[in-house]
Amino acid sequence: MATQHPVLALDIGGTKLAVAVVTADGRTHGAITEPTDKHRGPDAVIAHLFDMGHRSIAVAGLGTPAAVGISCGGPLDATAGILTGPLHLPGWIDVPIVAMASEAFGAPAVVENDATAAVLGEHRFGAAQGADIALYLTLSTGVGGGSVIDGRLHRGAAGNGGEFGHVMVRPGGRRCECGRSGCLEAYASGTNIAVRANELLAASERDSTLRAEPLVRAEHVSAAAAAGDDLALEVWDETMALLGQAVTDLVNVFEPNVVVLGGGVTRSGTLLLDPVRDIVAATAMRPAAERALITLAGLGDEVCVVGAGALALDLALASDLKGAARV
Amino acid sequence: MATQHPVLALDIGGTKLAVAVVTADGRTHGAITEPTDKHRGPDAVIAHLFDMGHRSIAVAGLGTPAAVGISCGGPLDATAGILTGPLHLPGWIDVPIVAMASEAFGAPAVVENDATAAVLGEHRFGAAQGADIALYLTLSTGVGGGSVIDGRLHRGAAGNGGEFGHVMVRPGGRRCECGRSGCLEAYASGTNIAVRANELLAASERDSTLRAEPLVRAEHVSAAAAAGDDLALEVWDETMALLGQAVTDLVNVFEPNVVVLGGGVTRSGTLLLDPVRDIVAATAMRPAAERALITLAGLGDEVCVVGAGALALDLALASDLKGAARV
Repeated sequence: MATQHPVLALDIGGTKLAVAVVTADGRTHGAITEPTDKHRGPDAVIAHLFDMGHRSIAVAGLGTPAAVGISCGGPLDATAGILTGPLHLPGWIDVPIVAMASEAFGAPAVVENDATAAVLGEHRFGAAQGADIALYLTLSTGVGGGSVIDGRLHRGAAGNGGEFGHVMVRPGGRRCECGRSGCLEAYASGTNIAVRANELLAASERDSTLRAEPLVRAEHVSAAAAAGDDLALEVWDETMALLGQAVTDLVNVFEPNVVVLGGGVTRSGTLLLDPVRDIVAATAMRPAAERALITLAGLGDEVCVVGAGALALDLALASDLKGAARV
Repeated sequence: MATQHPVLALDIGGTKLAVAVVTADGRTHGAITEPTDKHRGPDAVIAHLFDMGHRSIAVAGLGTPAAVGISCGGPLDATAGILTGPLHLPGWIDVPIVAMASEAFGAPAVVENDATAAVLGEHRFGAAQGADIALYLTLSTGVGGGSVIDGRLHRGAAGNGGEFGHVMVRPGGRRCECGRSGCLEAYASGTNIAVRANELLAASERDSTLRAEPLVRAEHVSAAAAAGDDLALEVWDETMALLGQAVTDLVNVFEPNVVVLGGGVTRSGTLLLDPVRDIVAATAMRPAAERALITLAGLGDEVCVVGAGALALDLALASDLKGAARV
């Protein structure tokens, strides 16, 4: 087979848009990241996204992309190619993103839940290469998940490939956006780590370096915890205990080879990885715990773009094969 | 292809041995169930099991089985064909059951975790026929699980296909055999339903029809709950709340088409099914909840034997194909 043509990858996040040309080796070219001006509505944001795509193609200088891969938070309908109503993009109702991208770039397009795209990226090019069973847990604005089962991308019957953020960790605990109380996301998303720290600051007069921040974010909490701040440590340790508990559940029920932790919160590195590993090693079922490697995303902040690229590479390959079969 | 030859299925339970000849339509013939005399040790029990197998073959009158399928609780090593140390059979260390059965019946043999066999049985012949993604949860002496993902049996990296009994339902709660505290199994196994009822009886002077039982078992608790006994209802309702919570977690993370509930505890029927369905419908993520049918095992008490038969049918077919390829 000839070397595969490059593809275009578009990642639609709630705070930023990320775009790149991706080659068959999983590398990005002409990568661009710009803010998502959500208040301008879907038409303006999509026009901006597609403009970024055209600029990325020009900068990469690798020719017309063979396909376009799009990753976006759910809920979305991957089969129909429609963003049905992403939670992080209020007002984006039934946006036919695949048809729009296909027309804009003159190439076939595909969309998937961002965590589904991410696990594909990590499995193809990152920390989960060669794993039969790989789970990806993203700790970001929200908490999402994706899985590769027996070497194949698992989409789930509802197309979201696993809502790992909605494992119960504290029954009757904090209210979660999904309607239950006590889900992992209600504690371990970047948003909720910050909210919990702010609540603790407001509820007491305790001394904390966090009081110097005008707006406490999750990265301030992890940095202050790393520096030994008591209040930050209290929030961080509780977060790690609950994250470790949820990852233990996932290890018990899936028996994976690899669990990849990604998303902004994991920029804290070993401060996050070590306690989660310790909890899984101590509390998961013996055979499952021994098989499961817990690790950080190998693709870092590019995981969703590379994942969207992997989707597009697969689509381009399938289109090529179909074309070849027709000849 | 000619009609497939029948196979022999052997299920090694902690309290009973179940044996049958299984035909390609999933039906059992010459089925025999006899107690497991655990105190006699592995050699005597296996001699008994194989004797049952020979009797079943004679009664069925369908000729020599083309393969032997064995289901047993874990841990076991399915690839090596060895029972490494089943929790329900103390002292059975590294029993080479596949080699022993193969020699005894002059046919190839295969062994799997009983819940893994059961989900295959339900997927092929029971309540999960045609489902892309099917989960099986057995509520029996312990709580086990198995899954079919994208139409294929999922064994997990550790070969136990998912330990659904070890989803956390009440952090810091009852001690579980696995070492954690608060797993589903610590509440919802038949054993633990009975233990919890006995504890509640011992801790108070409350009136209860259960006091008439010399030894309270799970089926007494469900029967008394169905009849409106307050104490039994307290145990049963708590069990259903925790079971519903765990099934909600599984629905969220797998996004299955079907969740099949089987094992002795599910003989309580709608008393168990209705509350679990209600909790999943009310609390699982919307798209996942809408896709997932929660149902009782279609194969009832025969699920493990039919599952072991399905394993053997697959093995016989693979052996035939290999034979045909050689010709």
